[in-house]
Order: sequence, then structure tokens, then C-alpha cells
Amino acid sequence: MTSTPRDPWLLTPGPLTTSASVKEAMLHDWGSRDATFIAINKRVRERLVELANGMGSHVCVPLQGSGSFAVEAMIGTFVPKGGKLLILINGAYGKRAARMCDYNGRAYATLEWAEDRPVESADVANKLRDDPAITHVFAVHCETTSGVLNPIEEVATIVQKAGRSLLIDSMSAFGALAVDARRVIFDALAASSSKCLEGVPGMGFVIARKAALEACGGNAHSLSLDLHDQWMAMEKNAQWRFTPPIHVIVAFDRALKEHEAEGGVAGRGARYRRNCRILIDGMRGLGFQTLLSDAIQAPIIVTFHMPADPKFMFDIFYDKLRERGYVIYPGRLTVADSFRIGCIGRLGDAEMNGALDAVRAVMAEMGVKSGAPARSKSAA
Amino acid sequence: MTSTPRDPWLLTPGPLTTSASVKEAMLHDWGSRDATFIAINKRVRERLVELANGMGSHVCVPLQGSGSFAVEAMIGTFVPKGGKLLILINGAYGKRAARMCDYNGRAYATLEWAEDRPVESADVANKLRDDPAITHVFAVHCETTSGVLNPIEEVATIVQKAGRSLLIDSMSAFGALAVDARRVIFDALAASSSKCLEGVPGMGFVIARKAALEACGGNAHSLSLDLHDQWMAMEKNAQWRFTPPIHVIVAFDRALKEHEAEGGVAGRGARYRRNCRILIDGMRGLGFQTLLSDAIQAPIIVTFHMPADPKFMFDIFYDKLRERGYVIYPGRLTVADSFRIGCIGRLGDAEMNGALDAVRAVMAEMGVKSGAPARSKSAA
Repeated sequence: MTSTPRDPWLLTPGPLTTSASVKEAMLHDWGSRDATFIAINKRVRERLVELANGMGSHVCVPLQGSGSFAVEAMIGTFVPKGGKLLILINGAYGKRAARMCDYNGRAYATLEWAEDRPVESADVANKLRDDPAITHVFAVHCETTSGVLNPIEEVATIVQKAGRSLLIDSMSAFGALAVDARRVIFDALAASSSKCLEGVPGMGFVIARKAALEACGGNAHSLSLDLHDQWMAMEKNAQWRFTPPIHVIVAFDRALKEHEAEGGVAGRGARYRRNCRILIDGMRGLGFQTLLSDAIQAPIIVTFHMPADPKFMFDIFYDKLRERGYVIYPGRLTVADSFRIGCIGRLGDAEMNGALDAVRAVMAEMGVKSGAPARSKSAA
Repeated sequence: MTSTPRDPWLLTPGPLTTSASVKEAMLHDWGSRDATFIAINKRVRERLVELANGMGSHVCVPLQGSGSFAVEAMIGTFVPKGGKLLILINGAYGKRAARMCDYNGRAYATLEWAEDRPVESADVANKLRDDPAITHVFAVHCETTSGVLNPIEEVATIVQKAGRSLLIDSMSAFGALAVDARRVIFDALAASSSKCLEGVPGMGFVIARKAALEACGGNAHSLSLDLHDQWMAMEKNAQWRFTPPIHVIVAFDRALKEHEAEGGVAGRGARYRRNCRILIDGMRGLGFQTLLSDAIQAPIIVTFHMPADPKFMFDIFYDKLRERGYVIYPGRLTVADSFRIGCIGRLGDAEMNGALDAVRAVMAEMGVKSGAPARSKSAA
């Protein structure tokens, strides 16, 4: 196999394959305090609020750094020093939130489920009833660890009924899976430029209920991660407190236009669902089995059990797919001997079918007859 | 005046004008856990250590976010919970460091000088003698607030003699003004991709004495800003803990090659000194006066007193220069009624002379005869 001249398609949870036009938007320089950039920044923030249907009631606070920076900033800014956070864990991102609280000293409790199970909202209701000290709940929308979709609307309803506040990590869902702030009541939702909105990585953002954010002065454990301070400063002069990742933001502005042209959240979500369908059907046709049943599978990233065939060696499989121009996710899961393939980013039918052709060819090269795992697994 | 078709030249302290080739390096997508990017990341980190002459003794820990994120991470990671930081303040960046300590709860003391004066190392020596609780000293190399160059080598010598540890904010100096880790003894030095190294903004980094960093486990107030954890994770598998700003890093790799081709720190510094000379001489020729004497002026950004002529209105001056394709820094100082023009980024004789021509033309348009301030100022 020779290397392909194009960039490999990225079938990962991000950074993703982005459009040429998104990348080309970065071929300029802007002053961060100049009117041209200020107008772009304003447009990006407004559009993000629109995507959550939060016009009038919600604001967008962008933040330098990765999505996890935005998540840590959200927790640190919204949970007051005397508050207590209930963290719903069914994967690495819930666990990471608990680790963030270990650093910033916020009290927290956890509810934990297996990585291949969604969060159970009834358990959340019980926990909130039993522990009145809990002020906030942290939930992950789509857990990239396994690709499981958590019932965020159900959780939001329960949290609201219990009179607590909800913080959502919608990192790998926002922009493709709808979150309507009129129906899903939350104080804050964190996401990033480089997942379903198909910008390049380098900034996160939080969509916050304005009334909630206004009460958050003095909460944060870090100046850089203080979303209240970041917001107040940006409201004052429309500028970032500290140097913004300006090329990333201008690329994101372009990505948001392309998102809109595709039909917004509905259009983007439809393409990802189609990508996911092609991937799962194709892989099952080759004998592979998914970790999750289709009912709880988010159309973002799919976890497959490792094939039983001793000729299947994952590192070789990965490298050979890479040579054919398809980069899958090299990370492994703790819950099961498995590997992951993403279906988000600027990919469509052709790329997904191309990936399946490559998998087929690489299996033949490796002499692997079937992708079937050791024992037949339950998911189908 | 019509707008110029090219991007305006940025005569600011950053984001800066970057080369076309640096921006073009961003026209690709990479998997953050794929070997291609991992090799680039490794090369960038090694080169940054080389620039500080810290091979073997020092390591580079890159961090997502702006330079201030790296500064806050440096303070939070290196000053232990029982430590005390002496912050040397002669501008906004020293003040910001104190604010960071207000957030993370570290004990600190300050020494303050006027914004148009450099840090006095004798005062530092006295303070360290008088307050044995001080464990670390924080110094800003070049204070962008006024453009003043602080005597970082003198400070380092005094801190070392007093048996304390030094943290340097070399944000707007590193890459153009030499910092030799063999002679300037520090525990950590923070800088960023988007200043004198002429990359695009989106990441900072810390050059750390390895033996000092090794002792920093458990210090940090934030998971995202924990440089010890970031370093340990990157040492283990050469990957970033959280999604890296991948396009920014690849552009930075390219920028570092161009820095090397220009003759490294010596070559880059020589061009900036020439830019600064052209700017100061030209502006003085038009009657403007600098805030600082040449002896304490860093070749990064120059502060000019506001002209006395009532026809000179800064906002109009700024806009008209902008229309001619030159963006100067719109920020104002507290110490004096003044404005600033930067001389770093991908600019040379032609751009600096072009900027002066534009200043001359705009003054004529505005009917301003001279840039002289109200009273003759002392600097010359």
C-alpha cells in the first residue's frame, strides 16, 4: 500500500476532518482588538445561542483551550464553594469531572453505571431525594468513551423537578443532536469548536442561562477558567480578556455557516445518522459486533468488539487502514476488548463506504475471515 | 482612502502578522493520536527547550489556551500550597499574576514600580532578605504594558543567591531576547506560540527545570492547568491529555523552522531591534515622544505620548491607519496619556517604513502638524 496524497479521513471523535473552506478561512491575520474580528466573534457567540434556542434567555461564553477546559470552567464557575455536585458517570468524561472537583475542592457525589449502559434517570431522582445537599447535577450528553447516548431530556426533567441545577457536557453531541433550552432546562452546557460543529480545535464554549451566570461572580477557582469574569469582560467591550485563538474562531465562524447551509442541527444530525448506519451495517456484514444496541447508540462514534480471529492484530489493522487513508481511533476501552470508529466530521456516504472497503481489504490482507468476537455478544 | 486588498499589517503585541507559509501549514487535518502529529509535537517541544539552551536539564510542557493560561498554570503548578510568591509588578501582567493568586489561594507579596520604570533588583534582594517565607519570585521579562525591558538576568542572580526559585513570564520576549537556562537560573518560564516565535495564537508553553517540575505533583489548583499532570501524561505516550489545538501546533512547527532559518533568537532579535529603531526614529522625526528612554525599551512594543495638538484624536488616527492597512494597538495606558505601536511579527524595513508613511499621511489629513506631547517629556 502506498500512502494516499490526500489527508487521511479522520474517523475519530475529534479533531475531525474539516472542510477545505473552513481551513482556508485561517489564511489571514487579524488584530484581536480590531473591529473586523470583534464582529466575527459576536456573530459566532450569537449563532451558538441560536443553536440551543436560547435567544434572550441564554448567553454564550467562549473559552480558550480544549473542550475539557470549558467543562472544568463550567463546573468551577457554576457550582458555588458551598455547593455539591452530583456527577453521573458512565465513562471517562464523567470520571474526569470528578477529578476536576478533586482539584477545585467542590463537594461531590457520584452515580456510576457500566460504560455500555446509559444513565438511569430513576436512579438520579432517588439520589436527589436522598441527598438534599446536592445543588447541581453534571451529565454527559454523549459519552465518547463508548458512544452511548444518555437520556439528557429525562435527566433535565428530573433535575428540574427536584429543584436542582443541571450542567451538561454536550461536547460530542452539540450541533448534531438537538438541545432545546426551552425544553431541556440547564444552567450551563459545554461544547467545543471541533466536534459536531466541524471547526478546528482550540476553543470551547459554554451556553449559559443568563440569570444563572449572573449569580456566579466569585465562584471560580481559576482566573483563566472564570466564565463569569470572561463574560463580564466580553460584555463590556466585546473583546476577549486574554489573547483569543483567532484563527480557530474565524474558522469556526465559517464552520457555523456551513452547518447552517447543511440544515443546522437537523441536517448535520441526519448526515451523521446516515454515516453511522452505513458504518454499523457494513461492519456487521463483515462479522463485527457493536458494544451497544442500536437503541442507545449515539451517531457519533461506534465501539466494536475485538474479533476473535488470532490473525487480527489491532495495531496492524490501524496502521494498514492509515496507509489506505483512514484514521480510526486508537484508544481502547476498559469495559471490553474493543476499538472505536467515529462517524462525525466532513464525511459522507462516499467516505464511510470507502472506509468499509478499506476494512474489507485490510482484513483480506491480514487473512482475517470474520470480525466476529470470541462469543456472540448481546448487542444487535 | 480605500481599504487595501491585503490583510492589514499588525503592529500590535499579538496576535501578530504571520508568514503565509505558517498559515498554509494549517490547511490539513491530523488525528491527534496519530503518529504524524505525535512526531510534530515532539519536534516542537524539543526545539523550544533548545531555544532556552536547556537540553538535558529542562523540558517543555505545552498547554492549550492563551499565554495567560500558561502563566496561571506555571504559578499554580510550581508554587506549593505552603509556598509564598513574590510578584514583581511594573505593569498589567504582574498585576494579573497577583490576581491569579487571589483565585488559587497562594500566599503572595508584591513589589511595585511605575509602569515606565524597570524592576529594581536591589529592591528584590532586600525583600527576599526581609521575608524568609517567600519561596518563589515571579518576574515579567518584557512588560507589554509599556514595552519596558526588565533586567531578568540580574533578578535571576539575586533570586538564586537568596536560595529561592524564579518563575519568568517571558511571553513577549522569548524567541527574540535570549534566555539561556545555563546562566539565567529559573524553575519555569512561560511563553506562547503567537509572540516573537511568530506562530498563530492558541497555545502557551512552559520551559521547566526537570528536577523542579518532578517535585510539583499535587500542587495545581486545576486539572486543566496542571502542568505536572500534562507533562507526566505526555511523557507516557507522547500524546496530549485533552484535545490539542492541532492546527496551531502544526503552524507553530512551521514557525519554529522559519525562526531557525532567520538565525534563531539572534536573527529574530536583530530584525525586531531594527524594526524598533526605524519606528522610534521615524516617530521622533514627526515630533512624537516615547514614554521610555531607549536604555530600558524592549524591541517589542513602543509607547508614545499622545500629541498635544487638539486636532489629534486617537480613534480617528487608529481608523485612518487601519484604512491604509496598518493596525496599531488600541489599548491605552494608565501611567500616561499614550498609545502603543508594536514592532514584532512578520514585519521588516518595508512594513515599518510603510507604517511611518501612513502615520505621516494620516497626520496631514487630520491637519496635525506635530506629534509632540503637551510638555517636553524626559525620555529621549
